[in-house]
Amino acid sequence: MTTQGVIGELKKIVGADNVLTQKEDMVTYSYDAAVLDPVVPSAAVMPENSEQLGQIVKLCSDNKLPITVRGAGTNLSGGTIPSSRASIVLLTGKLNKILEINEADMYAVVQPGVVTATLAAAVEKKGLFYPPDPGSQAVSTIGGNVAENAGGLRGLKYGVTKDYVMGVSFFDSMGEHVKSGSRTVKCATGYNLAGLMVGSEGTLGILDEITLKLIPLPKARKSMVAVYKTIDEASETVAAIISNRIVPATLELLDNFTIRAVEAYSKAGLPIDAGALLLIEVDGHPGQVAEDGLKVEELCKTLGAVDVKVAADDIERDKIWAARRSALSALAKLKPTLVLEDATVPRSKIPAMVKALQEIAIKYKIEIGTFGHAGDGNLHPTILTDKRNKEEWHRVESAIEEIFDRALALGGTLSGEHGTGLAKAPFLAKETGLSSIIFSRRLRKALDPNGILNPGKITGII
Amino acid sequence: MTTQGVIGELKKIVGADNVLTQKEDMVTYSYDAAVLDPVVPSAAVMPENSEQLGQIVKLCSDNKLPITVRGAGTNLSGGTIPSSRASIVLLTGKLNKILEINEADMYAVVQPGVVTATLAAAVEKKGLFYPPDPGSQAVSTIGGNVAENAGGLRGLKYGVTKDYVMGVSFFDSMGEHVKSGSRTVKCATGYNLAGLMVGSEGTLGILDEITLKLIPLPKARKSMVAVYKTIDEASETVAAIISNRIVPATLELLDNFTIRAVEAYSKAGLPIDAGALLLIEVDGHPGQVAEDGLKVEELCKTLGAVDVKVAADDIERDKIWAARRSALSALAKLKPTLVLEDATVPRSKIPAMVKALQEIAIKYKIEIGTFGHAGDGNLHPTILTDKRNKEEWHRVESAIEEIFDRALALGGTLSGEHGTGLAKAPFLAKETGLSSIIFSRRLRKALDPNGILNPGKITGII
Repeated sequence: MTTQGVIGELKKIVGADNVLTQKEDMVTYSYDAAVLDPVVPSAAVMPENSEQLGQIVKLCSDNKLPITVRGAGTNLSGGTIPSSRASIVLLTGKLNKILEINEADMYAVVQPGVVTATLAAAVEKKGLFYPPDPGSQAVSTIGGNVAENAGGLRGLKYGVTKDYVMGVSFFDSMGEHVKSGSRTVKCATGYNLAGLMVGSEGTLGILDEITLKLIPLPKARKSMVAVYKTIDEASETVAAIISNRIVPATLELLDNFTIRAVEAYSKAGLPIDAGALLLIEVDGHPGQVAEDGLKVEELCKTLGAVDVKVAADDIERDKIWAARRSALSALAKLKPTLVLEDATVPRSKIPAMVKALQEIAIKYKIEIGTFGHAGDGNLHPTILTDKRNKEEWHRVESAIEEIFDRALALGGTLSGEHGTGLAKAPFLAKETGLSSIIFSRRLRKALDPNGILNPGKITGII
Repeated sequence: MTTQGVIGELKKIVGADNVLTQKEDMVTYSYDAAVLDPVVPSAAVMPENSEQLGQIVKLCSDNKLPITVRGAGTNLSGGTIPSSRASIVLLTGKLNKILEINEADMYAVVQPGVVTATLAAAVEKKGLFYPPDPGSQAVSTIGGNVAENAGGLRGLKYGVTKDYVMGVSFFDSMGEHVKSGSRTVKCATGYNLAGLMVGSEGTLGILDEITLKLIPLPKARKSMVAVYKTIDEASETVAAIISNRIVPATLELLDNFTIRAVEAYSKAGLPIDAGALLLIEVDGHPGQVAEDGLKVEELCKTLGAVDVKVAADDIERDKIWAARRSALSALAKLKPTLVLEDATVPRSKIPAMVKALQEIAIKYKIEIGTFGHAGDGNLHPTILTDKRNKEEWHRVESAIEEIFDRALALGGTLSGEHGTGLAKAPFLAKETGLSSIIFSRRLRKALDPNGILNPGKITGII
């Protein structure tokens, strides 16, 4: 069948209103938050239930038409960029039901299009906690979080999306419905396909249900902002907190460049002359929060903080985190092009990585704003540039590659939380070696012999 | 090359002393802790380092000779039973080095043959904690734990082996060295092959290095024993503790049958007239431990406990857990054959599962001792029988299948922590459906085209 023929069939499955083909819509779905060339698809389709989803996959399978699944499109590695003009985008926006929140057994079952923050708020109302909180949580979807193994601010203490996926069901490349995992905390039945699906970026199957672990909501929390003259002192404090066996819920770093951008954008009252800020939250039992809070404050001051402000109440607390969450938007206003990297190092190597980033900025004569999840080694060096300036863009590309190399040399990884996608696929062998890529390609070829599931991502075209 | 020819080559790789072929040795490696027929292999080989391991896999790959990896052989699902006479057993006993314990970044890197308890003790000396504690931890190996996704007593609060594997390296079926994961808490680079390897029972690759997450050692803990007249009251207490949002580190149940067996075996001073015992430990910040301890004690009494004994010191505490850990050995002394199951249900379904087990015991006129990790829904119904009694064994087999069916009907899983192996492979479709098995077989066939990696386990022969 021609692509147009398939589009006609898609309309029969989901109704004409749920199939978009207008040029303006196609442009909307041609790019994501990664700095990569857009690719315009043929259509975007919005299934309203699992049955329709399965029929769509089967139809595309039979006609070898590639599918790229898209949640909110906040992807930073190009995972949601369509593979070619002759492909469709599958939108999960109408698969947005929270199917169950089980309080007694502390799990939730959701469709992939549920917005992360919506789920977090729904479980919080019941005294439960879904910790993964990617920066984009206000719009990002659980399906996207699972497909990318999204991280967030709380990775240090609470782990990432992977650590909360108990089970999944999905349609494989032939449109067959596959289940893995359980609603029990322990499950050793069959292969850990749920684990394999996490971070597979829509290349092994298309999720229709996800079972997530929930935990009791911490009883207390305390947030604070520590102000430093230099970023070196701030990064040394990060290493000291961890080596003192304190595990804050969040431990975020903002350099001067980011502080000024955030303050200009959010007017949160940040000290624009500070060399760096640490934003820290400890949570748990009230006794532990009190002790950890005091000890963290003491460590900050010992290691050079000129001021440590403790949030007096939830309003002050929320203001701190709103400022932090605005960092990306604030930086994005400064220049036409923003490249947000997430190379990650073992936590104790944060001071070394901060130094490496300073050296790279000087070497390639570029602006790098550094902020991010210092507590789990996952900094976000953010390069501000203008892609149209070819000479500068070339320097930016060289700087990015050096960021990867320096992170790997420090025992780190190319991507802490943004995924491989298209952006990091060319560099994958640097980290995993060629054998891992060949192994991955064999696995993928067997599970998607016609190459219809988000081709080109992670392992390149196979 | 003939099998004898390969054995000659194996001797060249590891030295003649590290290749066992004597009949007595072969019998030793023909069975594990599952009640299944033994299969005698041709040889057992003990590599001393990764290089030798890789050479062995390559040699077997070239000669299509199947390999079954064996740690301590404590497997309860037949995962370590050789596939055929024409196969070798690969022993990990000499790959037993703890390669690194990184205190600053809280991870450990180990070879697969490291004994679980040895690692736990080594990290505890540094104030760190490796929580997974399968019942067999005194002899079981980390490699075996990863291959089976082993659970343990602390699953409720701390999760299972899967939750601690940050990265692995392994030799694939062609002898190529594959790496996945990182020494960082966050890693979204490439497929989550480390997650796939967990629970893959030696069928996708042979591990040579494992990187494990460590956490700070809890500052305080409190253990107690609650004595009940009836198992129903004890199981209702389990559900009540969880629904009160208390997450004990361990929450174990012993029925009267198990209590009497353990007391006869260990003389620990257990009340042999009790209908059931709950053994409970809470840990964490001292304030939390004090609060949770009191609340648990109160809940136990409210729900019918006739006595709650709190361990006064570490000696009393250790005595409680030693008694619990002796349950399997104690029960094993009573009859020639012991079948230890691990069908698992959502935690709130423990009372229903306990009732189901009582009904099954009556229906099939068999003895079922029930103990295990009630807090995470993972009970161990233990059937005592004599396999030589064919009529009784037939009833036992029917009872086992009904245990599976009842667990699944309650939203549970066939195996919480023992793996699929040979024992549960015939029942896998009941839980996952056929599509998941076909998907798994395609995956496996692509990664092990000649079927040399522990054939027959999990998905059956493909």
